[in-house]
Amino acid sequence: MRILLIGASGTLGAAVGATLAGRGHELVTVGRTAGDLRYDITEPGAIARLYAAAGPVDAVVSTAGDVPFKPFGELTTDHYRAAFEGKVLSQVELVSQGLAHVAERSSFTLIGGVLSREPIVTGSAASMANGAVEAFVRAAAIEIAPRRVNAVSPTVFTESLAEYGDYFPGFPPVDLADVAQAYVRSVEGAGTGQVYVL
Amino acid sequence: MRILLIGASGTLGAAVGATLAGRGHELVTVGRTAGDLRYDITEPGAIARLYAAAGPVDAVVSTAGDVPFKPFGELTTDHYRAAFEGKVLSQVELVSQGLAHVAERSSFTLIGGVLSREPIVTGSAASMANGAVEAFVRAAAIEIAPRRVNAVSPTVFTESLAEYGDYFPGFPPVDLADVAQAYVRSVEGAGTGQVYVL
Repeated sequence: MRILLIGASGTLGAAVGATLAGRGHELVTVGRTAGDLRYDITEPGAIARLYAAAGPVDAVVSTAGDVPFKPFGELTTDHYRAAFEGKVLSQVELVSQGLAHVAERSSFTLIGGVLSREPIVTGSAASMANGAVEAFVRAAAIEIAPRRVNAVSPTVFTESLAEYGDYFPGFPPVDLADVAQAYVRSVEGAGTGQVYVL
Repeated sequence: MRILLIGASGTLGAAVGATLAGRGHELVTVGRTAGDLRYDITEPGAIARLYAAAGPVDAVVSTAGDVPFKPFGELTTDHYRAAFEGKVLSQVELVSQGLAHVAERSSFTLIGGVLSREPIVTGSAASMANGAVEAFVRAAAIEIAPRRVNAVSPTVFTESLAEYGDYFPGFPPVDLADVAQAYVRSVEGAGTGQVYVL
């Protein structure tokens, strides 16, 4: 398949890209500052330009979402709006604008995360964003068939424990290789409206 | 208790208000166009003025959230933003701005809904909003203790079947009286970070 990979240069994006490429897929990588195409998908207008530049694709894979992490008392209106624009609206727009550009049997795979179901300190805006993405996926799926949409919802990555482990005390981590397999399952499988929990 | 009731003139707000008043609580009712205090809580600045006007309260109860319902292909960027501002950010701000105004053992009870977990046609923006609210509640709860925050997440009301039943084919409805009891449980109980599913 020809796959549009958003956030290809990130920790998760690199792992997902390597796994998908290893399975013979052709990747079109997208990032703010790296990749075949350079766009900031938190700007809805940029998504239209991205799809126009990318040409036809069989799958859209998102591994990118920016949300602020701060103690609850420091999260302001602007932070919640930034979380919405940076992780929710950006991915919603990938789907809604993408419908006109993707093949009839194509799929969208979005990124959610464990904070939708389990909280951590400093994570209120992130929880809000992940809950929004995962509920959106369930809803959009029933209206975009035969196109499909799923979310991958991982806990903290084993490879990121050194950096973020203190925020996830006692959370069993997941290997990036296993998260990448959830993307494979979404892209090559037939599921829709699913949230793959890892 | 002295309870700030947001959305008091709506179908749900009226039922919750009657139940809480019947249990001896003093209500301060809030609405856009009706109630003791008139504010549009989808404007963050209005929430600051609302709390200043309301004086000290022991509980904040929200029964109001505006989201657009449209077929997936007709939902635009602006509709998703309206859903976020109208049901998510408004209620997030009730909690974050409210912390400075409520008693130490007070509670916030927000409104989510069944679309967070089960989709209906035209409901993608509403699902997104409800998923955001319910995940936010779980996260905020761990940082605002001893203050509490919960969400009530009802399916379609029995009393609203004539108007909305066609959108919820086969969904078992819930009586408003039962939904009001979930608010009582949140306000008078000790639970926090809970989503009361009805």
